[in-house]
Amino acid sequence: MTEKNTIPATRHDLDVADDRIDVQHLAENLLGTYAEARRTAREAVTSPDLQRDPTLPMEQHRERVLGQLKLLVERGLVHNAFPSAVGGQDAHGPNVAAFEEFVTGDPSMQIKAGVQWGLFGSAVMHLGTKPHHEAWLPRIMSLEIPGAFAMTEIGHGSDVASIATTATYDPETEEFVIHTPFKAAWKEFLGNAGLHGVAATVFAQLITKGVNHGVHAFYVDIRDPETGEFLPGVGGEDDGLKGGLNGIDNGRLHFDHVRIPRTNLLNRYGDVAPDGTYSSPIASPGRRFFTMLGTLVQGRVSLDGAATAASKLGLQIAVTYGLERRQFKAGDGEGEQVLMDYQRHQRRLIPLIAKTYAMGYAHDELLRKFDDVFSGRNDTEASREDLETLAAGLKALSTWNALDILQECREACGGAGFIAANRLTGLRADLDIYVTFEGDNNVLLQLVAKRLLGDYSRNLKGLDRAGLAQFIATQATDAAMSRSGLRRLVQTVVDTGDERKSAIALRDEDTQRNLLEDRVNSMIAEIAQDLRHAHKLKPAEAAELFNDHQDALIKAAKAHAELLQWEAFTRALPTIGDEGTRRVLTVVRDLFGLDLIQENLGWYLMNGRLSSQRARTLDEYINRLVKKLRPHVKDLVDAFGYTQEHMRAPIATGDEKKRQDEAAAYYRALRASSDAPIDEKVLHARDKARKA
Amino acid sequence: MTEKNTIPATRHDLDVADDRIDVQHLAENLLGTYAEARRTAREAVTSPDLQRDPTLPMEQHRERVLGQLKLLVERGLVHNAFPSAVGGQDAHGPNVAAFEEFVTGDPSMQIKAGVQWGLFGSAVMHLGTKPHHEAWLPRIMSLEIPGAFAMTEIGHGSDVASIATTATYDPETEEFVIHTPFKAAWKEFLGNAGLHGVAATVFAQLITKGVNHGVHAFYVDIRDPETGEFLPGVGGEDDGLKGGLNGIDNGRLHFDHVRIPRTNLLNRYGDVAPDGTYSSPIASPGRRFFTMLGTLVQGRVSLDGAATAASKLGLQIAVTYGLERRQFKAGDGEGEQVLMDYQRHQRRLIPLIAKTYAMGYAHDELLRKFDDVFSGRNDTEASREDLETLAAGLKALSTWNALDILQECREACGGAGFIAANRLTGLRADLDIYVTFEGDNNVLLQLVAKRLLGDYSRNLKGLDRAGLAQFIATQATDAAMSRSGLRRLVQTVVDTGDERKSAIALRDEDTQRNLLEDRVNSMIAEIAQDLRHAHKLKPAEAAELFNDHQDALIKAAKAHAELLQWEAFTRALPTIGDEGTRRVLTVVRDLFGLDLIQENLGWYLMNGRLSSQRARTLDEYINRLVKKLRPHVKDLVDAFGYTQEHMRAPIATGDEKKRQDEAAAYYRALRASSDAPIDEKVLHARDKARKA
Repeated sequence: MTEKNTIPATRHDLDVADDRIDVQHLAENLLGTYAEARRTAREAVTSPDLQRDPTLPMEQHRERVLGQLKLLVERGLVHNAFPSAVGGQDAHGPNVAAFEEFVTGDPSMQIKAGVQWGLFGSAVMHLGTKPHHEAWLPRIMSLEIPGAFAMTEIGHGSDVASIATTATYDPETEEFVIHTPFKAAWKEFLGNAGLHGVAATVFAQLITKGVNHGVHAFYVDIRDPETGEFLPGVGGEDDGLKGGLNGIDNGRLHFDHVRIPRTNLLNRYGDVAPDGTYSSPIASPGRRFFTMLGTLVQGRVSLDGAATAASKLGLQIAVTYGLERRQFKAGDGEGEQVLMDYQRHQRRLIPLIAKTYAMGYAHDELLRKFDDVFSGRNDTEASREDLETLAAGLKALSTWNALDILQECREACGGAGFIAANRLTGLRADLDIYVTFEGDNNVLLQLVAKRLLGDYSRNLKGLDRAGLAQFIATQATDAAMSRSGLRRLVQTVVDTGDERKSAIALRDEDTQRNLLEDRVNSMIAEIAQDLRHAHKLKPAEAAELFNDHQDALIKAAKAHAELLQWEAFTRALPTIGDEGTRRVLTVVRDLFGLDLIQENLGWYLMNGRLSSQRARTLDEYINRLVKKLRPHVKDLVDAFGYTQEHMRAPIATGDEKKRQDEAAAYYRALRASSDAPIDEKVLHARDKARKA
Repeated sequence: MTEKNTIPATRHDLDVADDRIDVQHLAENLLGTYAEARRTAREAVTSPDLQRDPTLPMEQHRERVLGQLKLLVERGLVHNAFPSAVGGQDAHGPNVAAFEEFVTGDPSMQIKAGVQWGLFGSAVMHLGTKPHHEAWLPRIMSLEIPGAFAMTEIGHGSDVASIATTATYDPETEEFVIHTPFKAAWKEFLGNAGLHGVAATVFAQLITKGVNHGVHAFYVDIRDPETGEFLPGVGGEDDGLKGGLNGIDNGRLHFDHVRIPRTNLLNRYGDVAPDGTYSSPIASPGRRFFTMLGTLVQGRVSLDGAATAASKLGLQIAVTYGLERRQFKAGDGEGEQVLMDYQRHQRRLIPLIAKTYAMGYAHDELLRKFDDVFSGRNDTEASREDLETLAAGLKALSTWNALDILQECREACGGAGFIAANRLTGLRADLDIYVTFEGDNNVLLQLVAKRLLGDYSRNLKGLDRAGLAQFIATQATDAAMSRSGLRRLVQTVVDTGDERKSAIALRDEDTQRNLLEDRVNSMIAEIAQDLRHAHKLKPAEAAELFNDHQDALIKAAKAHAELLQWEAFTRALPTIGDEGTRRVLTVVRDLFGLDLIQENLGWYLMNGRLSSQRARTLDEYINRLVKKLRPHVKDLVDAFGYTQEHMRAPIATGDEKKRQDEAAAYYRALRASSDAPIDEKVLHARDKARKA
């Protein structure tokens, strides 16, 4: 029915009480494919000068982060991805892996580095050609040229094709004229534009000889490096304070007929000759646009990894505290339970640990795919499309998850979680924007869904196939998305409520896989069915029909990405050499899978995929899973591998335990002395006993 | 079967296209019982000096907020609740209603006012007696004495009964000795303690003649008002930067044998004679403790209202923007749709509007109950208990909802939502702590559940009844909770999948009520069944059994509070005089009810309360509801009644529309001229046509 992974035979049940996680072994496994790069970056951020000081006001925070970028350069930490010709190493996977770890130092440092080298520098590298590389890359790498990536406009966020800035070629002077025709076309939310940027890669509609050849990127000087003043014709504003990431100077830019040399067009995918003749290696303007934007997938890839790293850090802090903190008396009246012994605490945090493992394993696969494409080892149109779809789905999931995880961690730590020094609120505030930048999550998921629909339509027989495919192609387009990739159709799962298949069946790997796959496929098939005549409708009616399924499309794409996470987790299990560790991790994977099924229990029941009888066992079963994992919870978060120098949270240092020990010793001594007061309640009880 | 509300007969179907909301009428209705107080407070915060400046660093923000408290005094806005004897008006409901509205000025101002007058001042008022009122209230009211409410300790958050600070009576000098025995007993997270407080109401174990009479409150001077230095024996630390509310100087306090006069004991519920003899009007130490803490229920009541007000403000900002902002081309290629026309945007925001209406109506009922108790009109043990249970449940729901709502609003506004000037991130950061202060939400819900179980057990027949009740009474206790209140048992709903009851049945008010009630009752009954033999177990086993149901208890309490919201919304419908408005609001109520059922669809299906057939219609039905409400969405948020002076968000000012109009005019003029470039795609199409 489905392809089966070759997992070594293993005792697979709940009884992991006697198993021990080999933390060292698991930590190594979690470091993944680019372990060395991650280790180096983690080591680097133990240096206090690369860490966040949460008390700095915006202005000082910005200066500190600029200084940190210089330190990253000095310490050779940010040039891996650049061509060896200009001093880089052409090492894309390791570069992104390292970059992701900077989030533990300060997300502002991470994202400002991402703006400088991942967006601004990458645009010059990927969209420019050798002369551009030679002219600018060395000084971009050294931070001599801090730059902005000027794509987004106030009037257009995720819809890049519609930007309004123009670059009109003037053959008289062999210059492009960069111009902002109206306020909605101001470039907006650009890191480095508020203050530090002296140049920018400006995306604009390229117009030459009366023809608009679509969006291209241009290298434009914007500020005098000496004075910091805008150059003539360039203007802008500072975005000021934001909800987070205040170490970055985001801002707006606009251009009033700013003239730049013809050769400042980053001309890898489209060029203009001195006489104004346009040429491109890619004939189709649509494909050219997607190819150019596709080179920027790195942003989404790295946010997926950074969100995962921040989730790990948050959980390591909250779980460490939850294992020390005590609250309320336990049933026997002797002392108080640690928070982690409360069922609710287990239910709120342990499934999030499972989710974070899934995110981590899925991310490592994404990163390998990214490296395969960008190293040229497997750089085909199909592999680029797969990469883009995978990045879109995983980035949407993990950035949302990170916010939920950090919030749950903060609440699980109570008031202490709200103190800035304990990091959780700051990390959450900084990561907030991850869910809407580098592609709004809802837009990304809609595009994943569109591809799933396209794949589905190719598998359709009959006349409707072309119609559906054509219709889909006309709906909501984006930066970095196109065709192919729906998973092979599996047979519909039907739960007959067979007695033999009781709760235990849900632990079965194939059962989980089938349930998760079936849901994605059924949802997509149902939407396709509803849309099958759309191409025969008038455009406005067809658009309304499509819009009436937007929510369902997004839900289906989310289900698809969750399935991919589950599969990545499952594929990772055999890579864990230690038997006990693998057994515990298998239970963690089960928890992840069953939690997904529980979240969508209504769907499984109303579509006959689970019997009521089995469904009623699920919640209780999840309770048992988290209880069984309770003894392993410290190992599970310790394996994330962050140290006190990464956590830097007073609540996760052991201070809590010291205070409790002090309190316990005080009460012991008091009880042993003659000074202990008698509780009024005890007096009442004695009274009562005496009277009786 | 169930009591039916007497809603006037009304056409009740989806067709509200021809209905218009009378915004003025609805706005007045939403202002609720204490409309005048709300209006006055809303008017007051239009004054810029009572508004937040998000760019201020912590130190300046703190000073600004202290200054704002002085302005609130000068403008006569904060003394309603105090006794008329000292210049107040004994007006509890209006006072809290006004207080809630301050959240739109600056949540820091609101909460610092809450600390000063709602906690510190209230403790003196409710726990003290006439001499205390005369000695301190006037200067507390005037802010001459800024004070801290020193209850929480580092080692004990929600578990107040276990605090370790001692107040030992010394009959020699007729003084209490306030002492912090160890670090875990430091008072923590206290507003006004970091910087401005010169006195504190300190909660400590009262010990006299060798007996500990439990927690009592003491009035303690902590700082020299002239120098701002701590008085001898008092020490403390500043909590520094927090995740939000940084206009408040939270801090820690500790006491080293600080001596205070005997008469500084706030002695309404417990007194010590000069010779050290303890006396109390309440014989039971447990009941005494709960009575004392029960006087502080105002904090929870007001957070419920403040969370609702902040949700309204956020939605008014995001919806206003969503009605102007355009993104991507619509199906017909002409222009772009406004965000609110996308199904996903409707699904993400309109159910939150419905939720906010439910929160608002439920809060107004809570506030009336609060006023009934505190005015003395209906001040019985039973009414206080009802009030406390209701406040606990509603506060938990609405504070969590507010975070979800503000986050969804911020994401719905994309990058613009992340800019601090647009308010959404700041409001969310400030409100974050609402979910864990004044009672952690999970702890509060557990206590609601405990009361539901208690009520259930009283309805039980047979031998197990006493056992269960007794067992429940021994489990997890708290500040402000005790017995009574489970709703009357209704008959279990069984959905036979009868064809006649198709989707339309879900619109029926009784159907919604029965489904929501049935879920609460069934969940509680199931837990009670599982726990029925618990009292026969050993304490440790019984505690484990209880703990194994903690998550289920919390879910049941949440379902109960949601039902209360739904009922309050339903009871409010007949109070809306305008027929069209009431019809639209009835659809909003349906959306709220059906959304709750959809969220728990798995439960309804696996327990046979909904047929698969009906369940499959639900999601589509909700899509239709939000689509039908789409034309009313502006009226629905405008009726919240906040103005530009409350929103103060550039994205909600109409600037977005102006920019779009400018862009559209530019393109119109361009098309009319001979300068418009031809799109390369058009050229290709012409080429193709020519070759064909």
